[in-house]
Amino acid sequence: MAAPVTVYGPAISPAVARVAACLLEKDVPFQLEAVDMSKGEHKSPSFLKLQPFGQVPAFKDHLTTVFESRAICRYICDQYSDRGNRTLLGRQEDGAVGRAAIEQWIESEGQAFNPPSLAIAFQLTFAPLMGMATDMAVVEQNEAKLAKVLDVYEGRLAESQYFAGDEFTLADLVHMPNTDLLVSKTGKAGLITERKNLSRWWDEVSARPSWKKVVELQSAPRPPRS
Amino acid sequence: MAAPVTVYGPAISPAVARVAACLLEKDVPFQLEAVDMSKGEHKSPSFLKLQPFGQVPAFKDHLTTVFESRAICRYICDQYSDRGNRTLLGRQEDGAVGRAAIEQWIESEGQAFNPPSLAIAFQLTFAPLMGMATDMAVVEQNEAKLAKVLDVYEGRLAESQYFAGDEFTLADLVHMPNTDLLVSKTGKAGLITERKNLSRWWDEVSARPSWKKVVELQSAPRPPRS
Repeated sequence: MAAPVTVYGPAISPAVARVAACLLEKDVPFQLEAVDMSKGEHKSPSFLKLQPFGQVPAFKDHLTTVFESRAICRYICDQYSDRGNRTLLGRQEDGAVGRAAIEQWIESEGQAFNPPSLAIAFQLTFAPLMGMATDMAVVEQNEAKLAKVLDVYEGRLAESQYFAGDEFTLADLVHMPNTDLLVSKTGKAGLITERKNLSRWWDEVSARPSWKKVVELQSAPRPPRS
Repeated sequence: MAAPVTVYGPAISPAVARVAACLLEKDVPFQLEAVDMSKGEHKSPSFLKLQPFGQVPAFKDHLTTVFESRAICRYICDQYSDRGNRTLLGRQEDGAVGRAAIEQWIESEGQAFNPPSLAIAFQLTFAPLMGMATDMAVVEQNEAKLAKVLDVYEGRLAESQYFAGDEFTLADLVHMPNTDLLVSKTGKAGLITERKNLSRWWDEVSARPSWKKVVELQSAPRPPRS
């Protein structure tokens, strides 16, 4: 029987990978459904009902649809609080204060880390795949922006093992897809590996079984169309 | 006696205004503490302990510090669940599904709406205040990006009174500071007022007592230094 949770979009998309990593940490079965973006399927009326901006991933759990990868991850943690990794949004006994310690780094990922890291990955990884020219001025401009953010992260990871403290949480997880692009697919690995604590953090989080499975999904042939 | 909640930064900052609006909706007393950004106080060691990126607002509640305005707002809703407006993150009985319906629009604000609307406000409102030239090419480029987002919002607000359904929630609140900048301070009010449903939404949400108080705070003399 098909799992009730469906993620629409290619695993190579960092936003799709973010949601897949979360589902794997939470041990929630799901299916990945292909969206042929080259044919504009993400702009079709049926897709826009799932995701009004026409972006991947779209997400469905029974009758519930959610969009935006970080909102989907929070939903998975809240809805499946008793499955898999139960502390991605903090320990219940730590309440609002514990969750806030995680939420602030999830937000810094979305606001400060994602824009420059995604711009670099777009120019150096996705543009060539799409037959587009790489704009090195954009790469350099965003590398300078990203370096400032990574310096803050390096300081943070000198104080604690993970972003929000002693445990792996959603704050770490949301950073992983773009970090992997930087390390593995852009030739810009030094941004991470030349920062001692960030490098230690990446070695640890990328060794998690959930992330290894995401990498497998990314290198697998495209899932069949349903 | 001083309130235990302190927000550091000028009310004119949209991120500070976002947090103030949330505290006012939740009826949580707070004090605004000035940060002299012209003197670089936001980059001082003591401020960086509160906010490692050196940005406003910083936020403190007793011994708890939180950064990033949207993370601070979630903390206020979670921590003060029994005060003021109790449904900013959904009704308790609606659980994870109800919260996700709100979270997806909070994320779209942070990811899709904030970057172009803040870029426009920076060029047309803050740059002149800082004696900098306005780059009209940047304004036009971001106006085109923003128009696509606002078209999605217009469709959404044709279906429901507020972003997440029939009730005012944090999904609406997070959009308010930048919308106010567009409507009141950039000469670009038409982006909102020429869209029927967005215009109706703005008239409703900006009439809330909490928002009127934010506007008062923004026009008040700077708070005294502590």
